[in-house]
Amino acid sequence: MRNLTLLTDLYQLTMMNAYIEAGIAQRNSVFDIFYRGNDNIEYAVAAGLDTAIEYINNLHFSDEDINYLRGLKIFGERFFAAIKDFKFTGDIYAVREGEFIFPNEPILTVKAPLFQAQLLETALLNIINHQTLIATKATKISQEAKGAVMEFGLRRAQGPDAGIYGSRASIIGGCSSTSNVLAGQMFGIKVAGTHAHSWVMSFPSEIESFRAYADTYPSSCLLLVDTYDTLRSGVPNAIKVFDELRKKGYEPWGIRLDSGDIAYLSKRARKMLDEAGYPGVKIVASGDIDENILSSLHQQGARIDIWGIGTKLITSAPNPALGGVYKLAAIEENGIWEPKIKISDTQDKITNPGLKTTYRIYDHENMAVADLICLKDEVFDETKPLTIFHPVDTWKKTTFTKYTMRNLMTDIFIGGKQVYTSPPLKDIAEYALKVLSEFWEEYRRLINPHIYKVDLSDKLYDLKHRLIAENTFE
Amino acid sequence: MRNLTLLTDLYQLTMMNAYIEAGIAQRNSVFDIFYRGNDNIEYAVAAGLDTAIEYINNLHFSDEDINYLRGLKIFGERFFAAIKDFKFTGDIYAVREGEFIFPNEPILTVKAPLFQAQLLETALLNIINHQTLIATKATKISQEAKGAVMEFGLRRAQGPDAGIYGSRASIIGGCSSTSNVLAGQMFGIKVAGTHAHSWVMSFPSEIESFRAYADTYPSSCLLLVDTYDTLRSGVPNAIKVFDELRKKGYEPWGIRLDSGDIAYLSKRARKMLDEAGYPGVKIVASGDIDENILSSLHQQGARIDIWGIGTKLITSAPNPALGGVYKLAAIEENGIWEPKIKISDTQDKITNPGLKTTYRIYDHENMAVADLICLKDEVFDETKPLTIFHPVDTWKKTTFTKYTMRNLMTDIFIGGKQVYTSPPLKDIAEYALKVLSEFWEEYRRLINPHIYKVDLSDKLYDLKHRLIAENTFE
Repeated sequence: MRNLTLLTDLYQLTMMNAYIEAGIAQRNSVFDIFYRGNDNIEYAVAAGLDTAIEYINNLHFSDEDINYLRGLKIFGERFFAAIKDFKFTGDIYAVREGEFIFPNEPILTVKAPLFQAQLLETALLNIINHQTLIATKATKISQEAKGAVMEFGLRRAQGPDAGIYGSRASIIGGCSSTSNVLAGQMFGIKVAGTHAHSWVMSFPSEIESFRAYADTYPSSCLLLVDTYDTLRSGVPNAIKVFDELRKKGYEPWGIRLDSGDIAYLSKRARKMLDEAGYPGVKIVASGDIDENILSSLHQQGARIDIWGIGTKLITSAPNPALGGVYKLAAIEENGIWEPKIKISDTQDKITNPGLKTTYRIYDHENMAVADLICLKDEVFDETKPLTIFHPVDTWKKTTFTKYTMRNLMTDIFIGGKQVYTSPPLKDIAEYALKVLSEFWEEYRRLINPHIYKVDLSDKLYDLKHRLIAENTFE
Repeated sequence: MRNLTLLTDLYQLTMMNAYIEAGIAQRNSVFDIFYRGNDNIEYAVAAGLDTAIEYINNLHFSDEDINYLRGLKIFGERFFAAIKDFKFTGDIYAVREGEFIFPNEPILTVKAPLFQAQLLETALLNIINHQTLIATKATKISQEAKGAVMEFGLRRAQGPDAGIYGSRASIIGGCSSTSNVLAGQMFGIKVAGTHAHSWVMSFPSEIESFRAYADTYPSSCLLLVDTYDTLRSGVPNAIKVFDELRKKGYEPWGIRLDSGDIAYLSKRARKMLDEAGYPGVKIVASGDIDENILSSLHQQGARIDIWGIGTKLITSAPNPALGGVYKLAAIEENGIWEPKIKISDTQDKITNPGLKTTYRIYDHENMAVADLICLKDEVFDETKPLTIFHPVDTWKKTTFTKYTMRNLMTDIFIGGKQVYTSPPLKDIAEYALKVLSEFWEEYRRLINPHIYKVDLSDKLYDLKHRLIAENTFE
């Protein structure tokens, strides 16, 4: 893996240097990664933990890094002494990849000396924001697709990593394969793809190109039919070549539509294929599709079996960033933990103090009904009724009697030692699917989803409001 | 550099294998990268060429790559023999980084055997689409900023590469510095940044945190003033610490606003700083800013000297992809070049055939007035009048008498040998600024910009329309 130790904002390093000068670099601290309610992302599917673990294990300042930093002439000698043998010695707790998460719930928590915790901020946010964003988008797309989704976005991804890790996140979000060969190699993802317009154009005629393709791949023949004219040239030529294939004892596989009116063309092409004796031939569609277009195409009765989805999946257009933040929640002073809060004029931007975790509450049918953000050391008794308050409109409340609770967070590093290993990617994808099935469709629908209840425990609520009172101005 | 040879779509490899089987793998071909008019991007600023050169020079299939591909069981032995010693032996022509480009103009052209040209498609598109997208966004932001712009986006970038190469592209687009230390190290970009909310929250009070920061960085003291309450706490505390600094003989540097109503807060903070005797202290603003917000803030009289711009710059929100394509333009058959065209129902999606280049036409004041896409071997006589037609509404025409022409494309590789070396990044940024100054503001404004004329030469126009006639159905 590349050395990404300098993949950080300069201010992390200037703060680390200044923490040393101020004599507080070794104070223990707690930072949470979470996203805020005002991001208008009703739910997210966590991803990126595996890359984050790799990043932390690889942290080290090379001689070249130190020389570069020395050249900036802003750091003191004690800083260079401290980074020379930098090693992460703290704890990390996180939700698993594939977990459904909601605003303000910690996705990952770092408990470490200020000096170390500050260095990690930028890269952890970069990794987790990106991969969670794409896993979430893929989940929305996969739910609407009602058919296999192939991730086709590499050529429009924001650089190589966006293609590679975006592809992995797409699998967590329910895609079945990728066109990206490097992602296939790195993560064992199934790779998919056949031919482009350039193949067709490299031959004197479309039918000759189809014939040559069928000769090379007789048992997996999928033909792109929109190079010249889908219904007047592409589909009829494909059928001719399918007839020839069948005479040789092969069953053709499918056709792909990449432009034009997909609803209309797929219905017409389906009819032509069926009438020619190919009801089993699949129709693949690609070209600028997202979850909203999928929903509309289904309403129009489009006859698509498999989707190839590129740009809008791999970039999460038109919302290409998850606004995850990394906020100080507590700091140790003379052996005592001080909970910390960031105040803001906007209610949504006020942070939750202290070392926390999140419990998911399930009803007797094992469906998720609410989440409870609480202090990490709180203990709940599932045999007693539990009352949940709306976090803002506190007059709204619900009491559960028959319920179970699950702690969403897991230990990842303890005392600098990795104690958690990511499962294989396909197990993560299965886990994500299982978690998804625990939520009623109403929470997951595209338009005006039902708002899932996320409450603070009484202890956390009281702590938060005490700190708000202490830190605001009249 | 990482081995990115497998950073490609599977279908490039299946086509390469099938080209061998069809006996046409070694036919020479021409492919163009360009973006289309229907992308609604009036102009773009080219970037990514330097990364593309590095990618091409590093192309090689490692034993591990070959083993992986062998395991897919879709390729023949002749394919493996051909990739074993894969080396790019063709030509590449491209516009320089920082060049202004318009729809349908070739950004980069590959002339190489089909087998090679096909492999390059995906990675070249990935690199050039991404970096051109960000350089273009940065250009729009820099023009509206009317002050230095620091690129602050790493934590919201789509993975490490998006942060690193996005930072480089931002500099091409006019940003002056980055918070991304790794990008600073890799490309010699000036790095910038001071402290975060966590610094302030790590101390018992805001003033203590400011004092500690000023102690460490007395000659470059920039304080973040919005942790608790900007006007009632942050700015007054900053002024107190600035007074203490001045007594010690240091001039304070600035304050940073990161939330709230930037227009209002900056005007009030400016007044407070001026009245306290700090008219020279800069005000830096950050937090979810883009070119439209910049324009609005200036209209409201915001008093910001320096901008820190993150998410919307580094992701080009809300348009996170440039739809650049890679299209076959010609293929050699028995020593004769056959121009090729991709037909589409949409006029904008019909490609321009043949090996091409673009000339920019300048008036006597050396301002750009039109571009002419033509065949690469066409010769123009600048002493004779030149008539330009509107590419769609051909009844609209303009004749130039006193003009000069500049070929926008440069040789990058010839016969597989690199013949062009990228200038240092700061020279590229200067070049981009020079090119920008050749366009009237009306072409560059955010809302309804004047459409810049891009015509086809008569020869190219005739060739295109002959091929359209030959390839369409009645």
